[in-house]
Amino acid sequence: MPAGRASAVDPARVSTFVVSITPFTENGVLDEGALRGHLQRMAAAGIGVYLGGGGSGEGYVLSDDETRRLLRIGVEELRGKVPVRAMGVEPRTSADMIDYFEMVGGTGVEAAQIYSLDQGHGHRPTQAEISRYFDDVLRATSLPAVLSTHQSVGYQVPVPMLVEMADRYDHLIGINVSHQDLGYLTSIVDALGTRLEIHVGGPHLALTALSLGATGYLSSEGNLAPHLCVGVIEAFREDRAQRMGELYGSLLRLSALLYAAGGIRATKAALNALGLPGGYPRLPQLPVPESMVPPLLEAIEQLGIGAIEGWG
Amino acid sequence: MPAGRASAVDPARVSTFVVSITPFTENGVLDEGALRGHLQRMAAAGIGVYLGGGGSGEGYVLSDDETRRLLRIGVEELRGKVPVRAMGVEPRTSADMIDYFEMVGGTGVEAAQIYSLDQGHGHRPTQAEISRYFDDVLRATSLPAVLSTHQSVGYQVPVPMLVEMADRYDHLIGINVSHQDLGYLTSIVDALGTRLEIHVGGPHLALTALSLGATGYLSSEGNLAPHLCVGVIEAFREDRAQRMGELYGSLLRLSALLYAAGGIRATKAALNALGLPGGYPRLPQLPVPESMVPPLLEAIEQLGIGAIEGWG
Amino acid sequence: MPAGRASAVDPARVSTFVVSITPFTENGVLDEGALRGHLQRMAAAGIGVYLGGGGSGEGYVLSDDETRRLLRIGVEELRGKVPVRAMGVEPRTSADMIDYFEMVGGTGVEAAQIYSLDQGHGHRPTQAEISRYFDDVLRATSLPAVLSTHQSVGYQVPVPMLVEMADRYDHLIGINVSHQDLGYLTSIVDALGTRLEIHVGGPHLALTALSLGATGYLSSEGNLAPHLCVGVIEAFREDRAQRMGELYGSLLRLSALLYAAGGIRATKAALNALGLPGGYPRLPQLPVPESMVPPLLEAIEQLGIGAIEGWG
Amino acid sequence: MPAGRASAVDPARVSTFVVSITPFTENGVLDEGALRGHLQRMAAAGIGVYLGGGGSGEGYVLSDDETRRLLRIGVEELRGKVPVRAMGVEPRTSADMIDYFEMVGGTGVEAAQIYSLDQGHGHRPTQAEISRYFDDVLRATSLPAVLSTHQSVGYQVPVPMLVEMADRYDHLIGINVSHQDLGYLTSIVDALGTRLEIHVGGPHLALTALSLGATGYLSSEGNLAPHLCVGVIEAFREDRAQRMGELYGSLLRLSALLYAAGGIRATKAALNALGLPGGYPRLPQLPVPESMVPPLLEAIEQLGIGAIEGWG
Repeated sequence: MPAGRASAVDPARVSTFVVSITPFTENGVLDEGALRGHLQRMAAAGIGVYLGGGGSGEGYVLSDDETRRLLRIGVEELRGKVPVRAMGVEPRTSADMIDYFEMVGGTGVEAAQIYSLDQGHGHRPTQAEISRYFDDVLRATSLPAVLSTHQSVGYQVPVPMLVEMADRYDHLIGINVSHQDLGYLTSIVDALGTRLEIHVGGPHLALTALSLGATGYLSSEGNLAPHLCVGVIEAFREDRAQRMGELYGSLLRLSALLYAAGGIRATKAALNALGLPGGYPRLPQLPVPESMVPPLLEAIEQLGIGAIEGWG
Repeated sequence: MPAGRASAVDPARVSTFVVSITPFTENGVLDEGALRGHLQRMAAAGIGVYLGGGGSGEGYVLSDDETRRLLRIGVEELRGKVPVRAMGVEPRTSADMIDYFEMVGGTGVEAAQIYSLDQGHGHRPTQAEISRYFDDVLRATSLPAVLSTHQSVGYQVPVPMLVEMADRYDHLIGINVSHQDLGYLTSIVDALGTRLEIHVGGPHLALTALSLGATGYLSSEGNLAPHLCVGVIEAFREDRAQRMGELYGSLLRLSALLYAAGGIRATKAALNALGLPGGYPRLPQLPVPESMVPPLLEAIEQLGIGAIEGWG
Repeated sequence: MPAGRASAVDPARVSTFVVSITPFTENGVLDEGALRGHLQRMAAAGIGVYLGGGGSGEGYVLSDDETRRLLRIGVEELRGKVPVRAMGVEPRTSADMIDYFEMVGGTGVEAAQIYSLDQGHGHRPTQAEISRYFDDVLRATSLPAVLSTHQSVGYQVPVPMLVEMADRYDHLIGINVSHQDLGYLTSIVDALGTRLEIHVGGPHLALTALSLGATGYLSSEGNLAPHLCVGVIEAFREDRAQRMGELYGSLLRLSALLYAAGGIRATKAALNALGLPGGYPRLPQLPVPESMVPPLLEAIEQLGIGAIEGWG
Repeated sequence: MPAGRASAVDPARVSTFVVSITPFTENGVLDEGALRGHLQRMAAAGIGVYLGGGGSGEGYVLSDDETRRLLRIGVEELRGKVPVRAMGVEPRTSADMIDYFEMVGGTGVEAAQIYSLDQGHGHRPTQAEISRYFDDVLRATSLPAVLSTHQSVGYQVPVPMLVEMADRYDHLIGINVSHQDLGYLTSIVDALGTRLEIHVGGPHLALTALSLGATGYLSSEGNLAPHLCVGVIEAFREDRAQRMGELYGSLLRLSALLYAAGGIRATKAALNALGLPGGYPRLPQLPVPESMVPPLLEAIEQLGIGAIEGWG
């Protein structure tokens, strides 16, 4: 029987992060100018930033040198203004993730995410292997770390294992939960909500997560609409239910719109068309067809995003 | 590309309904005393009531005479205090549903639900058959009707078909949506949200639905905790985001608790143990084992439900 | 750890059944002439017949009188030639199923199927309720019975419960398994394969089931192509792997073709167009559009069904 | 409407491959002695071999040097006896796969597999990106290539795109299909079955695939029981349906047994316990607990595998 819980939601602690895009030039070179411009826009909106993630950040096609450069630029532009963290990609072994933390350690980011182990080919590690992996990684670093449990690897990290890691490692500061499983999320919040940050991945469970006592949510939508994303959190903090609902409704519609149009391929195209720094995706991803951009912009405007973000 | 939308949420219109249990005696006779007591408790909490539903209402094991009696008692106890509606069960043919509406028409309920057609055996009707079915039923009645699109039948009623029915029949007053599909829900709200009531089935999407501009949610949890269910809606109306979150977090935890313990079997047992009218389930359902009741009550108390409902 | 098994497949015991269509006139009246014609065609092909099933047999829209009539005609046409059984529909209570067995008992069918309990609305019975249900039904009858475990009710009957029922009731003669779960099927065959008939529902696992030691398969495809369905079984019995594979490949392609074209709606239309008795579906099902029939017939011919069935 | 097909199964063309394990020492060093021993056993059984795959071959934790060494040893032990091919792992970019083909080209393997693009993090490429990827890779090599469409990447390569690649590139010699989707498999066989080898991944659809006209199946089970795997194919070729069914039933039971016990972790442990070369898994995978080995061996014996493989 699930345990009950009486703890109230703490509005002072809530927060949101954007999983930042990585702008490239049309020829696929890291576009440092666009990157700085984009991060300045994020900082101005007051949203925390995860850099180099495997999804929105195209982390899988970055070389180590590029990742280092990306993180250093992130630190230069963001540190002291908003939280700046490294996200990285799912590793095949603990050695992969330990190498990543070593590389990241020198860049000045404030924390880094530890992705769940992805053995590849749809295979799932055993419980013993999952535990061994997190132990090996957390023991090898002292950088503040956020553990990710994400549906893309095909399994959930068991809640007792999360608690064990939190008990064992003080530098484990948070959990990013990206399963659409309310019972699992509730169990994590009930077990660790007062000790660690708990963010859900994506906006779909954002209000639900806040209600359960989680810290907030991560999004890719913040790349286009950081004020909108922060606005949902601020409305909760300011105790304005209807404003929160209105913004959240727009965020969900924006999310569906961008996802259907091609994800960060569409986000980058929309930013460019709006005169904001966005850049291009790198291969194997291809830009969206140009004919898709005008109707996308029109749909974004119908959602009233321009007024919220200050470009409309 | 999904269409954008600018309409704000209207806090004056929001509402919630309980899908009422049907109390039986231990021998399986409709328990009219417990029924009246239960409905009085619902009325006192100010929650709308759907009667005789196929899930929480055990509608599938009620005879026609019992359904009529149930609805008449419902009207006596609820009418003028809170909305009172008939829910019914999924039909095999339009004739089944037309018969149901005829039966219901004489009882004084204010509206009745039209379930989606369930041809049985996991088979799904064609688009033409779904349309024909709704047309046949809606043409045959003038009672205010709420159309249900529910995951249990294995298909979604297409949004354009919902719009067509709304255009054609003025007595179609609402849609109950019980699919966990955010895009589908959004499309329904965008197409019909200003013309019809739109409630989601179950609490899992309640805040999300309100944010998208839907009217509210239905629940079985209201049988145990009607003030909690109403409280979420009131907090939204009173523009109190944190109160809303806190109550909603409790509601989600209560929902998981009751579901894991046996659904309405557990709800009835908990009500009885609390000295409230609940009754017993009827065969083929069996009561929960008695040993499950004390830990269930304890978990309910840890959620603080007693204080909210006024029994603690 | 799954238990091993050494028992070989017994080619003498293999068999297949058709889940018969129920022909109606265009106005929805039970078409006794077409029914007799259809059953004579089945008997001539040597295929066992299940009558009045909830899927292919449109059992959910038959009145009790019609079901009785259907079964009596079935007995007249089939008994002594091929096995003739009643299939029926998923019940809401044990009382429903007991009533069905009483009705069926007087018609002369050789056996009847006990469907798994379907409480409706997507709800699932507890283990105790499933066990109580089968016990109540099996105790109330002495007619040879075949227990059905089918994915449409949303749960599997646990293998130990199947064994318990087989131990307790000698008139339980078979299990019809319609889950696409190889492990579950294997467990049933390993536990009961030497004592009971075990058929899989539908052709998709037919060869796999025979290889595991099951008795055979049920199909709706047999309504159009009974010789094809029997041919797969005969090729196995005659130890002709390549002939079996060739026929089975045609059966799978025919199955996909009919399913995509509308299931028994398409089967009936194809039979009519071929000059064979098929009849029409009854509401809420609608006939397939006439324009679909010529390409359907052409695709059937390309599969070489005509030559196998003797109409080509 | 799916197209019909009249082509018969060609028993002369059928075949099966094992996705070979990669033996490591207990300390995680590539165990060349065990590798040679294992491959000699495969060659003796007459089964084709894929080397270095991302699942059974632990390809994700092999360095480039190890992969080259593995393939060279494979060629030394297998070439001229049984087909020897490189399998590799899912790439993030076409550049990854082109590099792989260059590396593989010098080793003497007869063909290599082109995995579907896996952009990581559960993201799916667009149609244009999938097409661009296969084009880039196939244009960059002249080594005989087998295209893989596998459920682990979360999408199916569209059949028309497969046909386009087959039209464009003569060195595309086969398709490995690992989706449990009968319709998709049928479409591929109907479109390309007479021009290319088509193997299904895993034994679950093996007989079904042969019946549809595919070439055969790949398995990991062949590492333990190569004669069993080849036996199924031989029985088909020798037109012995019952022998085929019996062996296939054993293969399915063995597959369930090994999967439940830990996949290749269990396979390696069983091989070692039987005195056959198996080696150990490399991190992040851990060996199965020793207590699991005796019951595993016993279950394997109950399936009669020893007699088939010649160790019993």
